Amino acid sequence: MDDKLKQLQTILAEVADLYAAAALLGWDQQTYMPAGAAEGRGYQLGTVESLAHLKFTSQEVGKLLDEMQPYADQLDPDSNEARLIKVTRREYDKQTKVPPELVAELAQVSAVAHQAWTEARAENNFAMFQPHLEKVVELRRRYADLFAPYDHIYDALLDDFEPGLKTADVKTIFEKLRPQQVALVQAIAAKPQVEAGFLYQPFDEQKQWDFGVRVISSFGYDWKHGRQDRSAHPFTQSIGLEDVRITTRFNPNFLNPGLFGTMHEAGHALYEMGIDPLLRRSPLGSGASLAVHESQSRMWENLVGRSLPFWEHFYPQLQQVFPSQLGNIALQKFYKGINQVEPSYIRVEADEATYNLHIMLRLEIEIALIENSLQVKDLPEAWNTRMEEYLGVTPENDAVGVLQDVHWSGGMIGYFSTYALGNLVSAQLWERINMDLPDLPEQIRKGEFSALLGWLREKIHRHGAKFEPQELIQRVTGSKIDPAAYVRYLKAKYGEIYQI
Amino acid sequence: MDDKLKQLQTILAEVADLYAAAALLGWDQQTYMPAGAAEGRGYQLGTVESLAHLKFTSQEVGKLLDEMQPYADQLDPDSNEARLIKVTRREYDKQTKVPPELVAELAQVSAVAHQAWTEARAENNFAMFQPHLEKVVELRRRYADLFAPYDHIYDALLDDFEPGLKTADVKTIFEKLRPQQVALVQAIAAKPQVEAGFLYQPFDEQKQWDFGVRVISSFGYDWKHGRQDRSAHPFTQSIGLEDVRITTRFNPNFLNPGLFGTMHEAGHALYEMGIDPLLRRSPLGSGASLAVHESQSRMWENLVGRSLPFWEHFYPQLQQVFPSQLGNIALQKFYKGINQVEPSYIRVEADEATYNLHIMLRLEIEIALIENSLQVKDLPEAWNTRMEEYLGVTPENDAVGVLQDVHWSGGMIGYFSTYALGNLVSAQLWERINMDLPDLPEQIRKGEFSALLGWLREKIHRHGAKFEPQELIQRVTGSKIDPAAYVRYLKAKYGEIYQI
Repeated sequence: MDDKLKQLQTILAEVADLYAAAALLGWDQQTYMPAGAAEGRGYQLGTVESLAHLKFTSQEVGKLLDEMQPYADQLDPDSNEARLIKVTRREYDKQTKVPPELVAELAQVSAVAHQAWTEARAENNFAMFQPHLEKVVELRRRYADLFAPYDHIYDALLDDFEPGLKTADVKTIFEKLRPQQVALVQAIAAKPQVEAGFLYQPFDEQKQWDFGVRVISSFGYDWKHGRQDRSAHPFTQSIGLEDVRITTRFNPNFLNPGLFGTMHEAGHALYEMGIDPLLRRSPLGSGASLAVHESQSRMWENLVGRSLPFWEHFYPQLQQVFPSQLGNIALQKFYKGINQVEPSYIRVEADEATYNLHIMLRLEIEIALIENSLQVKDLPEAWNTRMEEYLGVTPENDAVGVLQDVHWSGGMIGYFSTYALGNLVSAQLWERINMDLPDLPEQIRKGEFSALLGWLREKIHRHGAKFEPQELIQRVTGSKIDPAAYVRYLKAKYGEIYQI
Repeated sequence: MDDKLKQLQTILAEVADLYAAAALLGWDQQTYMPAGAAEGRGYQLGTVESLAHLKFTSQEVGKLLDEMQPYADQLDPDSNEARLIKVTRREYDKQTKVPPELVAELAQVSAVAHQAWTEARAENNFAMFQPHLEKVVELRRRYADLFAPYDHIYDALLDDFEPGLKTADVKTIFEKLRPQQVALVQAIAAKPQVEAGFLYQPFDEQKQWDFGVRVISSFGYDWKHGRQDRSAHPFTQSIGLEDVRITTRFNPNFLNPGLFGTMHEAGHALYEMGIDPLLRRSPLGSGASLAVHESQSRMWENLVGRSLPFWEHFYPQLQQVFPSQLGNIALQKFYKGINQVEPSYIRVEADEATYNLHIMLRLEIEIALIENSLQVKDLPEAWNTRMEEYLGVTPENDAVGVLQDVHWSGGMIGYFSTYALGNLVSAQLWERINMDLPDLPEQIRKGEFSALLGWLREKIHRHGAKFEPQELIQRVTGSKIDPAAYVRYLKAKYGEIYQI
């Protein structure tokens, strides 16, 4: 049986190597690739990814999994070996259900839809995008139907990003969260606004870069196994577990994007860097899910990086770097400014208090589209109605409304909720951490993050993808994903800032 | 038959995509990869390259080639299709002759030998490297023997880098060349030395970089399909034909490495950039051979970049960039300085007049090792004897003698001659170009390179690997590779500089 396990591990390692090669091709495409190389890069990515898929879904893998099942059943269910077989089996069964023709059709339709979306957004014309989105929705529905019987047709789409999570679960979570978050935003809106104009000044890019590097180095970002580069859209990319890179973009006239973007991506990277090396080159060598990943990035960005103790340590240093811009701005004023709540049209610019409302709106619309209770043609109206209801604003036009996000054009339906779930998980973990490390605020006030990182490594990072998200959160916090902690966190924080 | 051709082209395109992915993995390894990622990168490269090899040597490819032979025989033998089948057949027959066990053993032995070489060179101790090199030579001999019967056992090794070229050919070429080149070096040594000390001053690296960019942009280097980065050892890397990158290193206290290194690599890159796009993603989408490649890099570096007309145009600009270093150095003095001949121990630092002697020494030793007329233990003595005979110098120790090059430790036996052959070919082409473009020196004097690049594209670049090197040179110049043109070039140039 050892031989069979080794055979399986060898194949899975090769699959992981191919995905690592694809990851580098993707990283390079967004950082250093010459503009004229895009078409060739498309071929290269297509070939490498399809070979990885073919290898993973080969009959050989299926046969090995079948033969090893009795052996797996005898193992400690928490052992790396048992989990490897379980996770591989699960992913194998999913991927082999999907006919290659459907994958190819979705890739082709998405490529065209993405182009149409780019033009539709530029011309602020939803009708140009509508027929393409209709095809995407239709294909995603056909994809979801492959996994019948199901409790809800949206389950399969969600499962691709959050293994094991059900549509009913996220509905329950979000229905509990939404009224409380809407009420909070309304309460804040009724209060005098805090000042944030000082964040919009010229800030030298190199100095922003250097300060960000100083911050994430103190978090524990390991430059021997990572690097930072610039890109149009910030992202984190693992090219194997030994090479976890981040990118950041800087706005020369606005401090927030570079500063908090760097902390956010470092949070993703710290997760991957902390995965047990024994899990490398296997399906277990990645994060548990997108929501758990996002819980890490949002924790470092928000629960740490937008907290008062953090700035008690770092603000004097930031003032030294930008004396003319911030020398006369007091700590409390700075802290309130970076936490300003201001309902807006655009998700990626949203603050902590309103962000989840942007997500809930999208999730509700996605579910309705997939279950056919909403037609694509009625999307703009559904969008604008909810924006008014949840955030009290109506987009000026579809370009800053229903057309703002790239995801649907690329066939990514099922992804959005992970952003909001990540926020919820970050707060659940934060309550637990603060019980285990009662002097954490004091440590942060000294710029000390090693105990925090050690806790995250021990409880979350090292496990990689061994546990499904709900199981992992349950093990660590004692309950599944639940919005209560996040609501408590928001109320405490904004109650104090806005004196509610 | 069209279907079969398409099937073959599809497989070959996937193989090319995999090699492009490997190329990016390699480029990144030498430019931006974090230090701690080396082991994982080794796995990734191993997996991607071995999959490419497996795919190329699959029975499917062999069957398609067999079935298409009658069809290929009816095609215009110069057509892309006929050449694709011919070149693929040739490469397939070679690669399928080599048992995977031998490839694996050579890879393993080379990895250990490379490590041993690094240490042996650092400690100036040939004995530490000797047993490893003996294994490498033994394995390369076994490799060569797979291609018996042969005229000479070294043929197969040479053929890997120069398709179709025989050991007897290079022996004839170099035996004709060597006495003339030795005589020239001796004649130069008898003359007063030209001054070159002004090249060894502090030169700001960014200014060196910018000047190099200006020069190769004027050559026609296409930044939409390429980029330049820094690396410890300069190289050119194609990641598909649409993405041809170069790297350069700069010495802050010596002008030559950055300046001429940039032109050299741009010469390689211009070749790849000029290949007919119809040949991309196929075995024809690369240079004809290493010698032809080197003819391009050496032409731009030396026949263009170390010529008087070139500096008549660029020297005033260079003086403007470095006024304190070069403001008082006259053009003629600068020109002579960059062409100083000085026999030295180290190949990579050698000037045009002595460079080929370094190569001939290595080639003779390689052939003797492979044919077993020289034992590895006697290498240092054989090396030093020839250094004295050809260059009139004896290395102070083995670290700057027989241990100086990386090639043998990595199993690369058969490679060296291509460096010298490239020089010869560059001069053959140069005579032909100057017949076809009689006002070329005048154009270069104006900083105009488009006619030169156009000629090279038409005669050499666009053909990619359609023709074997000897066939290509014969077609373009009317004769096969021959040292006469290079000897004429050296005698004319150094006769004038050293007033011989």
